[in-house]
Amino acid sequence: MIKAGIIGATGYAGGELVRILAGHKDVEIIWYGSRSYIDKRYADVYRNMFQIVDDKCMDDNIEELAGQADVIFTATPQGFCASMMNEEILSRTKIVDLSADYRIKDVAVYEKWYGIEHKSPQFIEEAVYGLCEVNRGDVKKARLVANPGCYTTCSILTAYPLAKEGLIDMNTLIIDAKSGTSGAGRGAKTANLYCEVNENIKAYGVASHRHTPEIEEQLGYAANEQVVINFTPHLVPMNRGILVTEYASLKKDVTYEDVKSVYDRYYQNEKFVRVLDEGVCPETKWVEGSNYVDIGFKIDPRTNRIIMMGAIDNLVKGAAGQAVQNMNLMFGLPEWEGLELIPVFP
Amino acid sequence: MIKAGIIGATGYAGGELVRILAGHKDVEIIWYGSRSYIDKRYADVYRNMFQIVDDKCMDDNIEELAGQADVIFTATPQGFCASMMNEEILSRTKIVDLSADYRIKDVAVYEKWYGIEHKSPQFIEEAVYGLCEVNRGDVKKARLVANPGCYTTCSILTAYPLAKEGLIDMNTLIIDAKSGTSGAGRGAKTANLYCEVNENIKAYGVASHRHTPEIEEQLGYAANEQVVINFTPHLVPMNRGILVTEYASLKKDVTYEDVKSVYDRYYQNEKFVRVLDEGVCPETKWVEGSNYVDIGFKIDPRTNRIIMMGAIDNLVKGAAGQAVQNMNLMFGLPEWEGLELIPVFP
Amino acid sequence: MIKAGIIGATGYAGGELVRILAGHKDVEIIWYGSRSYIDKRYADVYRNMFQIVDDKCMDDNIEELAGQADVIFTATPQGFCASMMNEEILSRTKIVDLSADYRIKDVAVYEKWYGIEHKSPQFIEEAVYGLCEVNRGDVKKARLVANPGCYTTCSILTAYPLAKEGLIDMNTLIIDAKSGTSGAGRGAKTANLYCEVNENIKAYGVASHRHTPEIEEQLGYAANEQVVINFTPHLVPMNRGILVTEYASLKKDVTYEDVKSVYDRYYQNEKFVRVLDEGVCPETKWVEGSNYVDIGFKIDPRTNRIIMMGAIDNLVKGAAGQAVQNMNLMFGLPEWEGLELIPVFP
Amino acid sequence: MIKAGIIGATGYAGGELVRILAGHKDVEIIWYGSRSYIDKRYADVYRNMFQIVDDKCMDDNIEELAGQADVIFTATPQGFCASMMNEEILSRTKIVDLSADYRIKDVAVYEKWYGIEHKSPQFIEEAVYGLCEVNRGDVKKARLVANPGCYTTCSILTAYPLAKEGLIDMNTLIIDAKSGTSGAGRGAKTANLYCEVNENIKAYGVASHRHTPEIEEQLGYAANEQVVINFTPHLVPMNRGILVTEYASLKKDVTYEDVKSVYDRYYQNEKFVRVLDEGVCPETKWVEGSNYVDIGFKIDPRTNRIIMMGAIDNLVKGAAGQAVQNMNLMFGLPEWEGLELIPVFP
Repeated sequence: MIKAGIIGATGYAGGELVRILAGHKDVEIIWYGSRSYIDKRYADVYRNMFQIVDDKCMDDNIEELAGQADVIFTATPQGFCASMMNEEILSRTKIVDLSADYRIKDVAVYEKWYGIEHKSPQFIEEAVYGLCEVNRGDVKKARLVANPGCYTTCSILTAYPLAKEGLIDMNTLIIDAKSGTSGAGRGAKTANLYCEVNENIKAYGVASHRHTPEIEEQLGYAANEQVVINFTPHLVPMNRGILVTEYASLKKDVTYEDVKSVYDRYYQNEKFVRVLDEGVCPETKWVEGSNYVDIGFKIDPRTNRIIMMGAIDNLVKGAAGQAVQNMNLMFGLPEWEGLELIPVFP
Repeated sequence: MIKAGIIGATGYAGGELVRILAGHKDVEIIWYGSRSYIDKRYADVYRNMFQIVDDKCMDDNIEELAGQADVIFTATPQGFCASMMNEEILSRTKIVDLSADYRIKDVAVYEKWYGIEHKSPQFIEEAVYGLCEVNRGDVKKARLVANPGCYTTCSILTAYPLAKEGLIDMNTLIIDAKSGTSGAGRGAKTANLYCEVNENIKAYGVASHRHTPEIEEQLGYAANEQVVINFTPHLVPMNRGILVTEYASLKKDVTYEDVKSVYDRYYQNEKFVRVLDEGVCPETKWVEGSNYVDIGFKIDPRTNRIIMMGAIDNLVKGAAGQAVQNMNLMFGLPEWEGLELIPVFP
Repeated sequence: MIKAGIIGATGYAGGELVRILAGHKDVEIIWYGSRSYIDKRYADVYRNMFQIVDDKCMDDNIEELAGQADVIFTATPQGFCASMMNEEILSRTKIVDLSADYRIKDVAVYEKWYGIEHKSPQFIEEAVYGLCEVNRGDVKKARLVANPGCYTTCSILTAYPLAKEGLIDMNTLIIDAKSGTSGAGRGAKTANLYCEVNENIKAYGVASHRHTPEIEEQLGYAANEQVVINFTPHLVPMNRGILVTEYASLKKDVTYEDVKSVYDRYYQNEKFVRVLDEGVCPETKWVEGSNYVDIGFKIDPRTNRIIMMGAIDNLVKGAAGQAVQNMNLMFGLPEWEGLELIPVFP
Repeated sequence: MIKAGIIGATGYAGGELVRILAGHKDVEIIWYGSRSYIDKRYADVYRNMFQIVDDKCMDDNIEELAGQADVIFTATPQGFCASMMNEEILSRTKIVDLSADYRIKDVAVYEKWYGIEHKSPQFIEEAVYGLCEVNRGDVKKARLVANPGCYTTCSILTAYPLAKEGLIDMNTLIIDAKSGTSGAGRGAKTANLYCEVNENIKAYGVASHRHTPEIEEQLGYAANEQVVINFTPHLVPMNRGILVTEYASLKKDVTYEDVKSVYDRYYQNEKFVRVLDEGVCPETKWVEGSNYVDIGFKIDPRTNRIIMMGAIDNLVKGAAGQAVQNMNLMFGLPEWEGLELIPVFP
């Protein structure tokens, strides 16, 4: 039985970790870390867990937890994990960090986009970017995994095979993304009130969203060139789900079958990536509650562009599900253990 | 491996049966019966099942299916199951009927409220009303189980212990129920369009809803008297969930603890019934996707009434989940097999 | 031109007052009072008012405002208006108070249910309860109007004619109410976040909601007896709208036509009350954005109860619209001036 | 008093026309044309109009109507208006056609994208494209106005000044659009059921949506070159609202102020176009129920692209509101008569 601790267990991503790990046959949660609800029963914070989780919330003392847990998930604000990390912790436990602290290899880029000083840059090199379908081998050996962002997971996997195979002009890549509101977290902000989000859609963080450099770095590795993109997130009146619509000019004269075979080559053995049939567009509802990424595409001969679309559940494949997928890899378990969640519809 | 067939697999309750059974380790679905989508790939009707279910939809030939299946779930319009039933079918397979055809023991009551002739009244006597927490013993021995309605499951279980123990005046019982829209089914009707339901709430079937006699009959057995109630359903802009708010005058001078101990006596060993802590009101979101019934109550000394509240997911405990719970009982499996679904939040 | 000031202009009810008064041909808003947004442009708080309202938010100095305004609307937390009120203010301006401070004639009842001391009980006697359809004459002469609560407006008007005519047993009256989320205000609370309210329904304030004594008092005047009721509010995932479902035993043997004629006697000349046709249930969407109350009812001969249903837009007839209706009466304007708002559908 | 007839009065756009015209002081609706609800009371189809509209639905006999009405609005399926049009009708009344029949000047383009034969191509030349802000002068003199599509209105106005002034490379223009569900109409289709749309987002009509050539034609006139774009619509779980996010490469080195001054030059005297302050992104909720177009933009120096954003209410500025705006122009009324609708929030 793997002993798991969660720092930040009372945010939405933390709550989803609890839901998934509570159904994982090889894991026992030993620490429900929280800053706001210390000593409160976890099931009083998330009543869906009533009679399922009996424990109380603990603090966020990661040092103490490192002595007890085989793995620690940190679902914490940017900067927290970096500020706490040290060799002692890493020598005693494995870390899956759901924050952005170790995702970006160039610390200057991190500090510029996040506006904070990185407190433990010495571990950035070691940290493995935990996009399982891309870095599976490295994740298996990692002590410290940087779990990808929600937008980035969906954005990268949707374009990855075409970037890698040189089919698209990376300078033309535009990603228009739409997210449910759980991505904004459980903090009490006026902008996230029901009445402000409901019956409304808006763009935000235009040309400045922090997931931009993360996407650029990873797609840059794939394309083997420097990538600069436009990424525009939108807030959608729904709880869960991310849809990305990506536009890029084609570098070659390709047919539907050509592109489909590229996608299949990368993804047909991937349990959690489903390349849809011709003409089918992904919908967030079809992956809700699951770890799937659904991908579709359309070639437009009029403009010589390809429109790629991807859908995930932002709290599962975009956060907690992928974190568990990483944990499974790190501990030599079947990658899908605890993750065979069938999408809930409707 | 239990071979299961579903007649009506492409409605919302049928789809939920597929979701649950696909995760049930002792069941194999061998027949996806449909009237509208024969020969179409099931995953093209419900794309959440893409790469999970590869089969095509079959017709609704229950006779043929009876020769192949160990159990048949009928999630069909009222009257269908009754019109097809015969001794031969029942001698070859077990039936869990999700329609109302065998729920009501008095065929005249059925025919009056449903406005159709019952085609096989000879099986009504044998049929077991599949409210597992109440009729567990009989369900285990049944060939034919009448799976309770969604409103009725929630309405009955919320009041059952107090009715049984004579704490409430049954003549004063009023049930005000609220349901998500999946209860209205997947038929294409203007009244169920997104724009008609969204940002709207209404009562419907006032003093005439078909679940009324079903609730009255079952609570009548519990109270050992004839029960006539007001039951008012409302349509709420959400996909899933039923909340009932029940009002009744208390027949005895009781405290919170008195009532709580009655509820606990009936439910503390019930895996799927959660009696909430004092002062906590059930919310549909806390049971979404799960087979739980959450129950709370409040005594009002000003009026000498008790307000009982119950919440379920209408497609799970109110339909497919309870059907699987019944199947588990009928086949001697652990009652919760395949049903340890943790509520999804948010 | 009537000069109007609003204290609490940046809450949802205050915002709706601005929307309605901005379209009122005889009113000029001279003061957008706020506590949180002083000196901020009003249109930066509510961007729907961009290029419509150019003013900045002022403070909540009601004394100063009283010297400038012909009428002051106070859309403020309970206790504020009472704490500021004095004879000087009332001698210089008219007040429409949207809070509960002057709604309840018995100050002890107010202090018990609201848990605060009333700071100016000397004005309670004078204050007119501003339910226009009931107290029109008194409102016309008032200096200080207590604008009714949202739930209460809908609850009272739905039952009023039957209470007044002695058709229903007031001891049996149960009001099950459902409200959109704007009723919870614009304060940043976790419980009102999009993800907490969406796809969810719950009861709250069971047997303890503050609108209970207000309903009891007013229906008590109508029935000419002391009235004690059960009132249960529910939170519904929609922005606007209140639906009440009211249950009461009939004291006489009446037909549909009998009851309809009673309703018509009271309401057929009321511009803002629409008694629907037989068999039609009110829906909140049909009154959204308007000052209408839609009412329907159904007699249930099985239980000898009548089920009455009413629907309003909580921000219009339940708050700002009724406040303007009161203002129109106080200033001798046509009662519907600025209120001929056609419901928006869908 | 202008006598107006509506053919297609029972669709969502038709219903919105009724709402707006019922509040227009110079218009009387004399004909509520419908195909599905002939002889039914209009208020029984749209109960928000109870006690506001007493008339019954008529048929869609446009010839007869032409003899009675000063103006006819046709809110009908593609092809209907073209199939009925003749010189006699146009000689007796004015027409505002809300369908696509006369929007596209090249009949071959129309027939290709819409897949139907145009039955009266002889009137295409005469028809004025009713984008008031662009073609105001021609609209004033028109007998036949082609009211623009919802997506197109928003898409064109958002980019128009920059296209006209040559600031953007039209070959790089990509329009990612998001629409509420009322745009899909009131037809009873499974895909538009509440449970299918709610908690879901998807793209549709990728690289093939019919509004594409309409946008291309109009922006082509503005840019004075042939324009070929990518246009991708998405279905969003909300009733009303369209948001467009448009991407284009800048042809010149411009500052925020440069671009803002271009927008202002075109729109500062336009009552219904609001160019938002720097850094503010449009949100559909801020224009709901109104005839406004809200526009914002951001220059991204990293990619040398500009991101333009526009928001409208699809049923108002995207359909009925613009139709009334056109009617006002055609009859010499103030352009905003009946259209001073303040956005409803929340």
